Amino acid sequence: MRWNGWGDPAKAKELPRAVRALIPLLLGRVRRPAPPPSLAEVRVRPSALTDDDRAAFAAVVGVDGVDHADEARIRHAGGRSTPDLLRRREHEQRVPDGVVLPADHAQVMACLAVAGERDIAVIPYGGGTSVVGALDPERGPHRAVISLDLRRLRGLLRVDALSGEAVFAAGTTGPDAEAQLAAHGLELGHYPQSFRYATIGGFAAARSSGQNSAGYGRFDTMVTGLRVATPTGDLEVGRAPGSAAGPDLIRLFLGSEGIFGVITEVRVRVHPVPAERVFESWSFPDFAHGVDGLRRVAQHGRGPTVIRLSDEAETAVGLAQVGRIGKAIARGASVVTVYEGDDIDARRARTTALLRAAGGTSSGAGDAEEWAAGRFDGPYLRDSLLDAGVFCETLETATTWTGLATLKAAVETALREGFRDAGARSTVMCHVSHVYPTGASLYFTVLAGIRSDPLPVWTTVKARVNDAILAHGGTISHHHAVGRDHAPWLARELGPAGMRILAAIKRELDPQALLNPGAVIPAALPAGD
Amino acid sequence: MRWNGWGDPAKAKELPRAVRALIPLLLGRVRRPAPPPSLAEVRVRPSALTDDDRAAFAAVVGVDGVDHADEARIRHAGGRSTPDLLRRREHEQRVPDGVVLPADHAQVMACLAVAGERDIAVIPYGGGTSVVGALDPERGPHRAVISLDLRRLRGLLRVDALSGEAVFAAGTTGPDAEAQLAAHGLELGHYPQSFRYATIGGFAAARSSGQNSAGYGRFDTMVTGLRVATPTGDLEVGRAPGSAAGPDLIRLFLGSEGIFGVITEVRVRVHPVPAERVFESWSFPDFAHGVDGLRRVAQHGRGPTVIRLSDEAETAVGLAQVGRIGKAIARGASVVTVYEGDDIDARRARTTALLRAAGGTSSGAGDAEEWAAGRFDGPYLRDSLLDAGVFCETLETATTWTGLATLKAAVETALREGFRDAGARSTVMCHVSHVYPTGASLYFTVLAGIRSDPLPVWTTVKARVNDAILAHGGTISHHHAVGRDHAPWLARELGPAGMRILAAIKRELDPQALLNPGAVIPAALPAGD
Repeated sequence: MRWNGWGDPAKAKELPRAVRALIPLLLGRVRRPAPPPSLAEVRVRPSALTDDDRAAFAAVVGVDGVDHADEARIRHAGGRSTPDLLRRREHEQRVPDGVVLPADHAQVMACLAVAGERDIAVIPYGGGTSVVGALDPERGPHRAVISLDLRRLRGLLRVDALSGEAVFAAGTTGPDAEAQLAAHGLELGHYPQSFRYATIGGFAAARSSGQNSAGYGRFDTMVTGLRVATPTGDLEVGRAPGSAAGPDLIRLFLGSEGIFGVITEVRVRVHPVPAERVFESWSFPDFAHGVDGLRRVAQHGRGPTVIRLSDEAETAVGLAQVGRIGKAIARGASVVTVYEGDDIDARRARTTALLRAAGGTSSGAGDAEEWAAGRFDGPYLRDSLLDAGVFCETLETATTWTGLATLKAAVETALREGFRDAGARSTVMCHVSHVYPTGASLYFTVLAGIRSDPLPVWTTVKARVNDAILAHGGTISHHHAVGRDHAPWLARELGPAGMRILAAIKRELDPQALLNPGAVIPAALPAGD
Repeated sequence: MRWNGWGDPAKAKELPRAVRALIPLLLGRVRRPAPPPSLAEVRVRPSALTDDDRAAFAAVVGVDGVDHADEARIRHAGGRSTPDLLRRREHEQRVPDGVVLPADHAQVMACLAVAGERDIAVIPYGGGTSVVGALDPERGPHRAVISLDLRRLRGLLRVDALSGEAVFAAGTTGPDAEAQLAAHGLELGHYPQSFRYATIGGFAAARSSGQNSAGYGRFDTMVTGLRVATPTGDLEVGRAPGSAAGPDLIRLFLGSEGIFGVITEVRVRVHPVPAERVFESWSFPDFAHGVDGLRRVAQHGRGPTVIRLSDEAETAVGLAQVGRIGKAIARGASVVTVYEGDDIDARRARTTALLRAAGGTSSGAGDAEEWAAGRFDGPYLRDSLLDAGVFCETLETATTWTGLATLKAAVETALREGFRDAGARSTVMCHVSHVYPTGASLYFTVLAGIRSDPLPVWTTVKARVNDAILAHGGTISHHHAVGRDHAPWLARELGPAGMRILAAIKRELDPQALLNPGAVIPAALPAGD
């Protein structure tokens, strides 16, 4: 992973000519920033880890499992939000005091014990793809902070093909997991945009949702068990496919983002590799008609594996298909559908009837195939835009079908007015990529020509957006999670009693508050009721 | 509801002649017990509520909302497990000190405040159908205990037909909820055997699962929001159809059985009343082949709304269809399927292919229709059996498809050997009534001819069964919940850290431990790790 951007450095590209032509039309003239420092040019504070600290961790994970070199610290300094990338472009950077690489559950437990004895905060680290500040090197009240990199907890530990279950070590990446399952003729089917780098444990910790969620569900629904290491003991949760044995503790750790413990193993539901895959694109007169179509399909069920709708703005710039941006100025709102598995004819016939009834027209397989080909490439484009001086970020929420249009308008207004008040031109695009019987997600991409330092501008704009989301019934995140960036708004979403529950669990499992300080539960909680 | 048995007293019947003929064949000679006392003959301790206590509650709920008459106390003395019914047949009974009937969320909050001020334990009471001891009048360390009957929190509060969501007051019964939804052309589709009496809040508190779970999911998956009154504040959880805003707090209250708070409102996903309903029965050579068929159907998805498989013993006595018991001695293992909604032809064609591939043969609609006609009547039969001196109880668990046969054998052995060691003949029947991609439930009905006091015998046998369930990878309950009966085994299933989590939440929300003492979290927790 590129240390200060997304993905494989060899895949980084100049902005496509069409996009370069589009930018002045959308944003006016933008200012190309000074080139960022090389990794060797970045300055960091000396590590606060003592020789004794490093020896204590090395006694658990081996000498080669402790790294306090600047390069490792810089590489673990945060996630991949646009603010993260902007900070990675600065000459002075906040980084953890070292990186520790345990190799199994027992070593994770032992590392937590060392951290507790030595008053060192611990940031669990999977693929490094958080976009909500969950990986900030925050030491809280502690003497130092380490990044606990889980990459050595890797691989398919067990498969039960008859039951359709597989157990992965938490540090296994998406592609590794799928490759190992494919050897058994099985698939997990979880494809968030971070798929190529993110880990199975990260998917669980962040309550991820992938692009095939219409077919295979959110990651929440895929997880049938977890093994978790906490500072005060470990636990295994999830014993049966359905249970009424008290509250579902799996769901307590899904979305816990490392604040209660370190997820070390994840048991997931898997299915046979789909034999067939059919692509079909649709065009709707406008977003509202498209939403009506997606609602009908989601409420009927038994439809496509992927269904996503781009609004007029996203359709017009072609962002729905990364490879086509700017090539074709399409009208209306475009929909991508993909069917996997079997009974495709029946599912497609029913979906066709429902989408037609909502005003849709089939537009062939091409756009959907192009979407699939470029489905993981969006983040590369962001790096090129940042290089060109264009601020680019995404954010997301979800609400009921009834509330969707109002929420979309409110977020767009907050973005547009926020940038306008900062003297920046912006353009906002939106898509629906996760549908449920009762509602759907909204995913926004915003481009802005910010002529001053973009970080404080975005902080202000994002706060207005978050306020608008909560004021209009949305959730503060549909699948990006909370991290530190959303924590103050989570407190408003869950209310005082909800936050007291999280704080009580935190105190019980992690009484020294070693784990991921400031994530999910804001450092200063609003006063109780 | 009959005070010392199941359901409508007018529907109580003598045992069918065929069953009377069957009993001696299965169990030998049984001893008809002495007739139980009438309600007026039952002796209870005087209420520990003072005039001041009653006045304090009456100030909240009105004078007619506080009842400390013996009849009300006896009617709220417990649930409807067989041990509950056996205790209801005794002359001296443990009962709560009074019944309090709040009418809305605010009154529930105020009742909890009164209970806290006056050191009175509170047992939330919905339909009174718990079969796991969740309604025992346990006062714990407190001065008195009231039953907080939620029947006045009743009705459909809001409908969002476009989003397919409805909000019910927690005390609404299953039939009331469906009748009110039907006026909007909508259905919830949750039909546990307790449907006619149990409440929406009870379904949530107990993590219920209904007979149509293959089509509409467990109750867990139907709930999109909850309003909860706790002694230290109230909260609303569930904001969006999908969310990554921290852990899912809905799932913390589902299965909490009143120990964290009182659920006062439940938001649920609803669907249009199905236009069509098709019944089909199947016959398999044996249970193993039937399990193979159900597994194929569950893993494929998009199949029937109801699918259930009776083992050879249940098939032989005809218990799968309550109306037919003993009439036809069928061979093999029978399966009931019901399809609701649309696309039934496609779903049925696929299911037919999968069941045939597993060795099944269609046997027409009759058995499935008879099952549907008698689907809520099983519990009446139990009362008649108890009257005749036949012990009858049910229990259930779940595990993976791989573990199912071993778990079934282990439970059957524990039951058979347990009764044998107590000198009682027994017969055990089993069905699978809830299927998932990764596994299924097992539901056992046991009949025994116990010639001594049945309660201590059953306590011993049930403990052996629970041990066997945990030893063979099952969950201590698939849909009956924990209550007090399963609490010690829950502690083993969740482990020390899991129970510490529950205890920490309990301390935070209910620091005086007023709510349902001894349920879910056993009074004496096993020592920590």
